[in-house]
Amino acid sequence: MKKIYVVGIGPGEYEQMTIRAVKALESCDVIIGYTVYVDLVREHFAGKEFLTTPMKQEVERCRMAFEKAEEGKTTAMICSGDAGVYGMSGLMLEIGQEYPDVEVECIPGVTAAIGGAAVLGAPLIHDFALISLSDLLTPWEKIEKRLLAAAAADFVICLYNPSSKKRHDYLQKACDLILQYQPETLVCATVSQIGRDGEEKHIYTLKELRDLQVDMFTTVFIGNSQTREINGCMVTPRGYRV
Amino acid sequence: MKKIYVVGIGPGEYEQMTIRAVKALESCDVIIGYTVYVDLVREHFAGKEFLTTPMKQEVERCRMAFEKAEEGKTTAMICSGDAGVYGMSGLMLEIGQEYPDVEVECIPGVTAAIGGAAVLGAPLIHDFALISLSDLLTPWEKIEKRLLAAAAADFVICLYNPSSKKRHDYLQKACDLILQYQPETLVCATVSQIGRDGEEKHIYTLKELRDLQVDMFTTVFIGNSQTREINGCMVTPRGYRV
Repeated sequence: MKKIYVVGIGPGEYEQMTIRAVKALESCDVIIGYTVYVDLVREHFAGKEFLTTPMKQEVERCRMAFEKAEEGKTTAMICSGDAGVYGMSGLMLEIGQEYPDVEVECIPGVTAAIGGAAVLGAPLIHDFALISLSDLLTPWEKIEKRLLAAAAADFVICLYNPSSKKRHDYLQKACDLILQYQPETLVCATVSQIGRDGEEKHIYTLKELRDLQVDMFTTVFIGNSQTREINGCMVTPRGYRV
Repeated sequence: MKKIYVVGIGPGEYEQMTIRAVKALESCDVIIGYTVYVDLVREHFAGKEFLTTPMKQEVERCRMAFEKAEEGKTTAMICSGDAGVYGMSGLMLEIGQEYPDVEVECIPGVTAAIGGAAVLGAPLIHDFALISLSDLLTPWEKIEKRLLAAAAADFVICLYNPSSKKRHDYLQKACDLILQYQPETLVCATVSQIGRDGEEKHIYTLKELRDLQVDMFTTVFIGNSQTREINGCMVTPRGYRV
């Protein structure tokens, strides 16, 4: 059977990959991904064929992977974090319908929410909602509705894609919606470059977060009514009596 | 500096641990956890001191870890999946306030939502909410509110702790709440024993899921309006034009 692995490589540094992901990549002839991610793993998998496509060529990238697998080469499509969270595994399974003799196996990884939470302490210890602020593929009205619902039900919220050149005020808009239900003093945080050189974390109030400019390498955490700062960490207690 | 690692060991099989987690456990003198999880890693870390406490003794387990670290032994508290998602890292940071000379480092892992999603295909590819149905530490009214909010805003929903001896009808209750906003035909799924012997996945409609009995080793996935079944996989498309 011809084989494609769809592999989450974790937040960035090699050591945050799972053993299963490493073994899958070692077994491959071809490793395909967005340029930045391929550069993160290249040195650890010498002798492989590496192929990249730039951003916004996701469909082409997937087809390229299936074409390689059709040629009989064991192939991996890599994504940062987990391939199943805002990654390529959905698109790979959709396009895979056109290549019925290629088996697709998804290998999970540490997504930015999980990796960033560990950097911050324990913000996601209880129920949480993960929301992307990118409206490239989702109408903004739907994003707004989800932000309001999550804030009203007191979910901890983790935001992916909080900003870009064209969307410099989206984090502010998101905070304004959340402020309809949560107080200005709510404990929030950002983590940037998770698991990479220059990793940084900061804790803010929701009011401070609202007025912040963040970049696209930043993951944003918005606490719930129980979230606290403990010794510089962001912690959402689960309710144990200590 | 005295040191404790709080380590997510992934869904179960050794290969789903990250390299970072393996290295941390290798560096430890003492590995502490709930009995079932310690048994999962014991054979891979020969020569360590292993300590366990049964379920519902989480506070005692944390104190035991800090006492060992105070003695100068490098110690790891292990959790299945990720320690920061319904795991021990929050409690460890809370109790850590009493042991200011012990440094706590959280090492992320693949939580059941991420691991189970990879087994199913790509159900969590877009915005999702993670909700535990256990009311041991959370009032049921709050769980209800979150289920309704998540369904109303068309989040994909992943349910942890969908059942137990005392809570045999909670999944049914949850489905009934979701049915206020989503159709009976909504694509849902269960995965049990993720990454362990006997791993099983099943795809259901929301109506079928409502009438199902599941056990506590099962993670439940409830799709959104866009989720589809593709060749036996559960896939939530992200909106790319294929």
